[in-house]
Formats: sequence, C-alpha cells, structure tokens
Amino acid sequence: MDRDERPEDIVKALKSIVGSQWVLTEETAIEGYLRDETPEAIRPHPAPWVVLVKPSKVQEVSEILRLANSRKIPVFPLGGRTGLAGAAIPVKPGIAISLERMNRIEVDLENMMAVAEAGATLGDLIKAAEEGGLSFPLHPGDEGAQIGGLIATNAGGVRAVKHGIMRNFVKGLEVVLPTGDVLNLGGKLIKNNMGYSLLNLFIGSEGTLGVITKAVIKLLPKARYTVTLVIPFEKRRDALQSAQLIMRTGIIPLALEYMEWEEIERTSRHLGEAWPAKGKAQLLIILSEFTEEGLLQGCEEISKICEDNHALETLIAERKEEQDRILRIRSNLYTAIKPYVYDILDVTVPPGRIRDLMDKVDAIAEKYGTRIPIYGHIGDGNLHAHIWKEEGRGLEFANKVKKEIYEASRSLGGVLTGEHGIGKVRIQEAHLALGEKEIELIRAIKGVFDPNGIMNPGTIAG
Amino acid sequence: MDRDERPEDIVKALKSIVGSQWVLTEETAIEGYLRDETPEAIRPHPAPWVVLVKPSKVQEVSEILRLANSRKIPVFPLGGRTGLAGAAIPVKPGIAISLERMNRIEVDLENMMAVAEAGATLGDLIKAAEEGGLSFPLHPGDEGAQIGGLIATNAGGVRAVKHGIMRNFVKGLEVVLPTGDVLNLGGKLIKNNMGYSLLNLFIGSEGTLGVITKAVIKLLPKARYTVTLVIPFEKRRDALQSAQLIMRTGIIPLALEYMEWEEIERTSRHLGEAWPAKGKAQLLIILSEFTEEGLLQGCEEISKICEDNHALETLIAERKEEQDRILRIRSNLYTAIKPYVYDILDVTVPPGRIRDLMDKVDAIAEKYGTRIPIYGHIGDGNLHAHIWKEEGRGLEFANKVKKEIYEASRSLGGVLTGEHGIGKVRIQEAHLALGEKEIELIRAIKGVFDPNGIMNPGTIAG
Repeated sequence: MDRDERPEDIVKALKSIVGSQWVLTEETAIEGYLRDETPEAIRPHPAPWVVLVKPSKVQEVSEILRLANSRKIPVFPLGGRTGLAGAAIPVKPGIAISLERMNRIEVDLENMMAVAEAGATLGDLIKAAEEGGLSFPLHPGDEGAQIGGLIATNAGGVRAVKHGIMRNFVKGLEVVLPTGDVLNLGGKLIKNNMGYSLLNLFIGSEGTLGVITKAVIKLLPKARYTVTLVIPFEKRRDALQSAQLIMRTGIIPLALEYMEWEEIERTSRHLGEAWPAKGKAQLLIILSEFTEEGLLQGCEEISKICEDNHALETLIAERKEEQDRILRIRSNLYTAIKPYVYDILDVTVPPGRIRDLMDKVDAIAEKYGTRIPIYGHIGDGNLHAHIWKEEGRGLEFANKVKKEIYEASRSLGGVLTGEHGIGKVRIQEAHLALGEKEIELIRAIKGVFDPNGIMNPGTIAG
Repeated sequence: MDRDERPEDIVKALKSIVGSQWVLTEETAIEGYLRDETPEAIRPHPAPWVVLVKPSKVQEVSEILRLANSRKIPVFPLGGRTGLAGAAIPVKPGIAISLERMNRIEVDLENMMAVAEAGATLGDLIKAAEEGGLSFPLHPGDEGAQIGGLIATNAGGVRAVKHGIMRNFVKGLEVVLPTGDVLNLGGKLIKNNMGYSLLNLFIGSEGTLGVITKAVIKLLPKARYTVTLVIPFEKRRDALQSAQLIMRTGIIPLALEYMEWEEIERTSRHLGEAWPAKGKAQLLIILSEFTEEGLLQGCEEISKICEDNHALETLIAERKEEQDRILRIRSNLYTAIKPYVYDILDVTVPPGRIRDLMDKVDAIAEKYGTRIPIYGHIGDGNLHAHIWKEEGRGLEFANKVKKEIYEASRSLGGVLTGEHGIGKVRIQEAHLALGEKEIELIRAIKGVFDPNGIMNPGTIAG
C-alpha cells in the first residue's frame, strides 16, 4: 500500500498502544532513523512519510503488527542503523519500529548464555558479558549495532574466524509474526533438532519475516591470553601466502585480517593516531588461547611462517590498551574511506581463492582506470572492495565496476555478499548468485510468514 | 497415495532411468533397507511394498523425483539407516532411494573443504579428510552413517563440543526438489548472506523437502596433540560439578561425555574389552590442541578441578590406539544396551541444568519402579535416557515414562530431541516442545517445496 498521506487514525491507534510520546511523526525527530551507514550515493531514499514507534515490550510489538497487518501497512523493523546495504530503510510509507527501549540483557553464567532484547547494542552485550564473567567474541564493526539487526543480517566482522559468525551464537529467538503471534524458537540450548530450524530462517532474514524482539546468545568464558599481531609485507602475495599457511597449522586465530598501507594510514590520520607498522600489505591477527604457552607458541609459529615469506617485521601488541587501539583503527577503516566511495562491497569466495579475487579486482581497476581499495576478513574469504568516486563519473560507472567485481567473485565460486546482505541495494544483481528457483522459494517462504507482504518490503523476498 | 499393489509401470520407468539391476523389489533383497537402528519395540513398520532404487548420479535422482511427483508416489531418501527415530523408514508404499553408489569424496586442501556425495559414509569422510592432510572432527556414533543422513538429521554425537555439530560444518548442498529441479546452495564458502538460508532449512529436514545429493563440508587442519581422559567419581554430582567448572575455564574440549559404570562396563564386556577405570560416575574428555604445552596445561587444570571435586583418579590415554579403543567402547554404549530397551531418548536442556534433569529422571525411575540408564554429551546439555524393557510391562508403560522424561526436560527449558530428530517416533509428543503455530509454519514451508507431499511422508512436516 502506498499512501500519499499519513493516516491519522493509524497514528492515534499506535499512540494508544505505546503511549503518545513514543510515536513520532515530525521529520526532524525521525530523520536520523531513516538512514543507515550505506554510502550516500547508493543509499535508498526513505518514503515521503513514516511513523516511528518505540515499543517497550513484546506485547506492544505484537499489537503494532496486528494493526499494521489488518490495514496492510508496511512495517520496517530498525536496528542500530549501522547496515551497509540499506536493508532497514523504510522505502515505502508505513511504520518504522525502533526497539531501542527494549534493551535489557541478562547474563546466565551457569548456562553461559545471554538473554538480550533486540534493542540492546553490541557494545552493551560485550560489556554485559564481561561484567557477568564471560565474553562475547564477535566484533562486527560498529558497537552501536543492535542485537536484532546483528541477527537479522547474520553479521560477521573481524574476530569471526575462531568461533564463527552470528549464526553460530544465536540459540534462541523471540519473534513476532505479522499476525501478532509471538514465537519462542530454540532456547538456552546448544543442540535442538525439533523440526525445521525456523530459528536459522530468521537469522539473515533482514526483517522480512517478522520482528525479532529477544535472543538467547551463547557466550564464552573470558579470554585468558590474547595478543594482537600486525605483520607488514612488501608484497601482497607474501601476506596472503602466509595467511593461508597459518590457517593450515591448526592455530585458529580469533581474527585474520588483511589490509593495505594506504587505507590503514588514512584511517589512523582520520582518528589522530599513528599506525604502528609500515609495509604495503599487512596482516592483523588476533590470537586468543587458554594457556600462555599456547599463545607464545602460536606467536612464534606465525612469526616464523611470515618471516619465511618475507615479512618485514612482526609487531606484537600484548597490552589491552594497545590491542584495543589497533582494533579501533581497523574498525574505522570504513568510516575513513566512506566519503570517498560509491559503495563498499563484501564479496566472498572460497578462502583459498582470495588472492585470485584480489588480482581480478586489480585488473578491473586497471581496466576502468580507477582505484579499488581493498581489505578484508581473509580468514573467511571475505573481501571489502570499495568503488572510488571518480570525478565526472557517476553511478553508471560505479555499477559497471560493481558488476565486474561480482562476476569476478562468481567465477571463483563466490557470492556477492558474505556479511552485509542483499538488503535494498543488491537486488538488481542478486540473480548473479541466486538461481531463479531459489528466489522463487525465498519469496514463497516469505509468503508463508507474511502473506500480506507488510514486513520490510523492497527486499529480494518481495 | 496408498496403493495395494506395486504399479509395474513405475518399476519399468525406474529401470529405464537407473538400469534394471539398480531397481530392487524382492523382499529378501530390500528388507535390510527398510529398518534403521531405532529399538525394535517402537520402530515403525515398513509399507507392504517398496521399490528400492540406487541411482548413480544427480540427473537420475532428478528423473526419479520428477516421475514420482507426476504420479504422486511417496519417496523415501535413505541414508546409512543408523537413525534412532525411524525417520528414513518407508511407512507408505513408494520408492526408497539409496544413494550408496553416489559416494565420491574430493578433499580440497587449499580451501580446507570436502565435497562429498550423499552416499559416502562418515567413515569414508574421516578417512578421506585424513588422507588429504586435514581432519573431520565430528563423530556421531556409527561410522556407517551416510553424509546425506548426517545432514538431514543435523547429527551431533561425541566430539561436537569444540567445533559444533553438522550444521556448523555444512557449507554447501546440492539438493533435488520433488519437481526434479537441482539446487546448488552455498558453496566452498565460510560466509554467505545471499537471502534466507535454504541451506540451513535442509539441514535437519529429515528428507522431507527434497533429496540431498552432495555436500560441501568444512574440514579442519589435522589435530596435532590430542589426549583422552577418563575420570571416575563415586558421586554423580561431583562429576557434573567438575564438568561445569571445566567448561568455564576456557579450555574447550573436543568431547565432554558423562557415563555410568554399569553401562560402560556392560559395553566393554559386550565388546570383549576391559574398561580402564572404576567409579559409578565417569567423565570422558577428549582434548585437542595445537601445542603440546597447551594440551598438558589443559590436562593439569582438568585434573586439578576433578581432584578438588573428589575424583578417584585421572586416567590419561595418549597413544592413538588407546584413545581409539576408549572412543570405540563409548560409541558402542547404545549397541550394547539396545536389546534391553524400549527406547533411547536424547532430551536436551540448557547445559547448566543437566544435573537437575538427571535428578528428575532418577525420580521418574523410582516412581515407576524401573531403571533408566543414562549417559550423554553433557558439554552440550544432551542426555541419553533409556527406557528399560520391564517384564510384563509393555509399550503403554514405556510411553508413560517417556512422556514424563520429556516433560522433565521441558520444565527445565529443554526440548525432546537434541540430535536424533522427531523422525517418525516422536510426532505424538512433538507438541510438548513445538507450538501449534510452529508446526503450522513447518507444514506450510514443507508445502512450498513439496506441494504434493511426496517426500518422506509420515513426519511432523506432514
């Protein structure tokens, strides 16, 4: 349903559900909710009107959805708006739901799980886990990301090599269906084989099946010994060769990142920091082990491999502040480059083909006479490639470059997106990696949960 | 469609697809394909007639399904028939597909993945991984289990604590839909966020959505240092307390098993072996580390925790043959107890509640004046409880005991099954852990893939 004007009776009904002060319609009050971290050039435009509601409990979410469903009004569940594919932007007139008031977290030490409401942030979760004597190892970029969004996008990020991505940590979900039904899927359970995994269907569903309101998240014991290594090389191929050999040793790092001098230096300047190592191609490795000896031996083996492959030096950061500083600079790579790029891609290939992918990306840059800065989670085969804003060359140019990078990924057995999702900006090209039949099935499954199509319209699911 | 007589035109058509010698109809030739490892007392009866086909490639599977679908004939994909919930038993007249001829495995060292056809066995995969310089750590019981079945049941077993269950290892699938369409989901990819995870929907779907014909399975580097600990205690609570403290240290064992003297002793006798440790309640722990020092420190810390909690001694097996022997005896616990039981349950609770679950199971045994032998993957909160065949007390008694154990699990936040699945023997009680709405969604999703309901009818999906 596209409506020209905001239906005031709906606003009134929403106010009676959540209370007047939690229903916002003024542009100035809601504009910050209508964008995410997608580069501006390609970010979808929000609809002419959107009503923003901020429920405080699941019953309110349920009533909002029941109302919206009965009137066939689109509903856009928002997270922390840190997405990079425009998934949460309300592109049709309708109701945007911010779960920011639903941000409680309980840590259950006995079962080593957290129960987090969807509006709690990644930062909140990391802190709560630590205060509860445990840890949450993932670090998908911005700590302002919300739990619901992390799950709806199956977020990854750095520190996902050893223990996996969001999918590996989510054990239970409370979700509200468009009908208002509240489902409790899974629980504080490591194993659960009760029929099709509806839980895994919601993970990565980008708000198209219902609203995630709460999650049970597996935690780990506190990390005992961690170290961050920064290892610069003159040549990219040496860095990548080293990375591949490291992955085969059996040392599973928490993070295994690749980046290049120009980008990490720009970011350091942007933050008023100095990056501790020079060299065109660099590896950033975080190790986390339960014994000090294991950690030391891991460092030694990694250093040896890198030295044998012409590393310039190995910088070892042991102090927490220094490790945090390095991670912070790494996590800001995108922030620093964002103003200069049309798009940030997150193509993903079989991990052993990452070098071929980079070579292909270089060839594309040369072909188009542009630069395509890259860095990525190479332990996972996941590469971020950035399409540079070239003066006088607009979106048409950007789209051509993008499509060639997608095709390069496909030719190596890869996909278009390993973490950001299809969202609202990769639909046109999704068919490059999804067959017609798969898209048909995705849409039919969407129809099972949301026959009126009210949940986050404008995605690949419809 | 239930037919009294085998339609000979179908047999003829199948013969023209796979070749005459790969279509079997004689009872003596196929009876071994019509049962699994479910205890006989509760195992479903196969249908009066079943045609067994043994395709050699995916195109043949596709043609078989297209034929069956056009005639609305039930299709039962078989695995290695090692299941414990009757999931693969053809309970209606139709076509059973054995994929035993599709058993190729390729190991890709560069990407650290195996590509395995569905009919290859777990034993084949473990061996191929080792020969390829890598390893597959999972060990869900019987090595005759086939890859397709391991995935269709999302198998777990021992050695699943450190790296997870099948769901964590399956990265790509080739599946054939009832229409004959062949889908390739995922690939040699660690990360993939291209829409709803149809891959995860097939994992644990018990053959109800289509036929899994091939899988991409993540492998790990060869284990460098492993050790098996057997730690006996006089009291169960001390063993469980130790297990919980071990899990909090940050040492993540490959396996963390609990068992009791009577069962392990019976199994050892059954195999003509001697179990190396005495004590009512025992922990079996397998550690796998990449440094020898890490392994030694792990052993020390675990021993210290157990000693502080009144362990009788700690037996450390370092030689491969000794470790294999211990694992073999453990893996035969079920084989040895099978003739004496009505059922083997695999209830699963939040890991910290396993002690409460065992107490409840004891109370149920006392209430009914029976014994309920237990053991389990306690690192995962997963308990096997066995309903003893009491003379003169039939299935009605067994069902009562079973239902009480299920309810005990539910009352602790658990589910009925953490690994064996609902199959065909747990449908009656599934509603204890699945809401009406969830069952409705499961059936509607099934309808999307298989509108004629030909795939493995007789499960919770319809």
